[in-house]
Amino acid sequence: MKAIVQTEEKVTASLQLQEVPTPTLKPGEVLVQVKAAGINRADLLQTQGNYPVPAGASEILGLECAGVIVEAGDTENEVGQEVACLLTGGGYAEYVAVPQGQLMPIPQGYSFVEAASIVEVACTVWSNIGMLAGLREGQTFLIHGGAGGIGTFAIQMGKALGATVAVTAGSAEKLATCKELGADILINYKEEDFADVLKNKADVILDIIGAKYLTQNVKAMAKDGHMVTIGMQGGVKGELNLGHLLAKRGTISATALRGRDNADKARIVRSTIENMWPLLDSKKISHHIDHTLPLAKAADALQKIQDGTITGKLVLEI
Amino acid sequence: MKAIVQTEEKVTASLQLQEVPTPTLKPGEVLVQVKAAGINRADLLQTQGNYPVPAGASEILGLECAGVIVEAGDTENEVGQEVACLLTGGGYAEYVAVPQGQLMPIPQGYSFVEAASIVEVACTVWSNIGMLAGLREGQTFLIHGGAGGIGTFAIQMGKALGATVAVTAGSAEKLATCKELGADILINYKEEDFADVLKNKADVILDIIGAKYLTQNVKAMAKDGHMVTIGMQGGVKGELNLGHLLAKRGTISATALRGRDNADKARIVRSTIENMWPLLDSKKISHHIDHTLPLAKAADALQKIQDGTITGKLVLEI
Repeated sequence: MKAIVQTEEKVTASLQLQEVPTPTLKPGEVLVQVKAAGINRADLLQTQGNYPVPAGASEILGLECAGVIVEAGDTENEVGQEVACLLTGGGYAEYVAVPQGQLMPIPQGYSFVEAASIVEVACTVWSNIGMLAGLREGQTFLIHGGAGGIGTFAIQMGKALGATVAVTAGSAEKLATCKELGADILINYKEEDFADVLKNKADVILDIIGAKYLTQNVKAMAKDGHMVTIGMQGGVKGELNLGHLLAKRGTISATALRGRDNADKARIVRSTIENMWPLLDSKKISHHIDHTLPLAKAADALQKIQDGTITGKLVLEI
Repeated sequence: MKAIVQTEEKVTASLQLQEVPTPTLKPGEVLVQVKAAGINRADLLQTQGNYPVPAGASEILGLECAGVIVEAGDTENEVGQEVACLLTGGGYAEYVAVPQGQLMPIPQGYSFVEAASIVEVACTVWSNIGMLAGLREGQTFLIHGGAGGIGTFAIQMGKALGATVAVTAGSAEKLATCKELGADILINYKEEDFADVLKNKADVILDIIGAKYLTQNVKAMAKDGHMVTIGMQGGVKGELNLGHLLAKRGTISATALRGRDNADKARIVRSTIENMWPLLDSKKISHHIDHTLPLAKAADALQKIQDGTITGKLVLEI
């Protein structure tokens, strides 16, 4: 099969479409012919050598895709079945082996491209905010980077769950996007300190900044608040005042999806289908695709992510 | 009624037995004649001005007691009923008003003194380790200060739940106590770094040290580990490496029982009765009482806590 291969270590531009062996199936896996593969910032980090591939995972990039089952292996799935897939790697290719617990239905009315763009963000946001932090009706939900891929999904999910949604972003234009999606409290971090605006009010915080916001996040936290860090664009080492955290009875988690084992991923996929797919089917949550590119243009796509010129999702079509 | 009153701010020795008004009942409260009142380190901190009394709570010391209901108020409890009580304050007195959700049965075969000594530790350890961190069979449970009042209860609870229990303590004698109670892994923190011994192994950590151990606790944490800080004997401000926490998918909580509202306390009391009382009834968990003193000797009792000469629990008899 053809797949994207990195020919030079740490050089994103060295990605090339090459002939490689088609994956063979392990027990419990199906072979999916990839029709579309979503692109994530983690892919860029991986090409730069900053996101280690978990043991046993494909070296090929790509954490989500949509396509058609061409071999059902020892599973009860059927050849010809159209699926969306949460991957541990391998999506930038014509074929990928997928553990059956990571198969999801294509949401109603979705194209392969649309389906491939939603898997990673839906599983990430739901597993952290729904399953781990337990966001519920009436709570205040603070989202950093509200206008990004994670943020725009999280805003809509928060509103669908009945939360008051607060967002931070760096421009009036980005905040307008957040407002259109339903955000209630709009904070331009260049003009205001979010911790002053939301002092003691945020029941749940979705954080992609890390160290730089740690003290402010604890200040913004409500009693029994829960902050989940899934990105560290603002560094890893911060000062934590446990006394302040204790005064809030607060909780801080930091998580990632990729390193989880198959059973854990299957648990998350099941819960995401149950809780998020109805919101996708009914269009209560939508997702903006910036544009698509052919598989051979993977290096260009990641360069665009690096340049920060993209406002929606990039998807590779195969 | 007679109660212990602090006559000079921040001076523990100024505690005196004085005549004060008997509490009047709010809706949902009962009046308990106190037979025994447990003494906690938090009481000492309160006399020193370092533990603010929650709004609306009694200014009188005392977070746990056992006694007899003498007025049932508007509740369905009965006069004459013997009870143990989780208090927000007021235990160092002849009578105390108690919200009905904070009443507990006297464990089987327990005296008032024994019952008064177990309430705070049982609710604290169970709410944090059972309810919040979800300790379960087969997991590794690290307890700092294994030989203290919290630690000795936690060791026995951990073993009863089927966990492997690791403890830190500062002497061979203290570690021998922990071993007798069932601890599996004994770490003298003066001789070994617990984070080296338990690197990546501790599923649940009960921490009373705070900042000083923060980095080591994250290092000791297993994948999906959960650390709960309930004391900060080693300071409040520490460095948190969110990258290390994310690599573990770890969670850090810091909590306290006293500031919770009545509904929250009732929820904890119910779950503690359901899960811990059978272990007390069957003597799978026991609790060491150092000695008892009369109510008038409260100042002496707290001085002994300050001196650190006590190896078990102190209880006031009324």
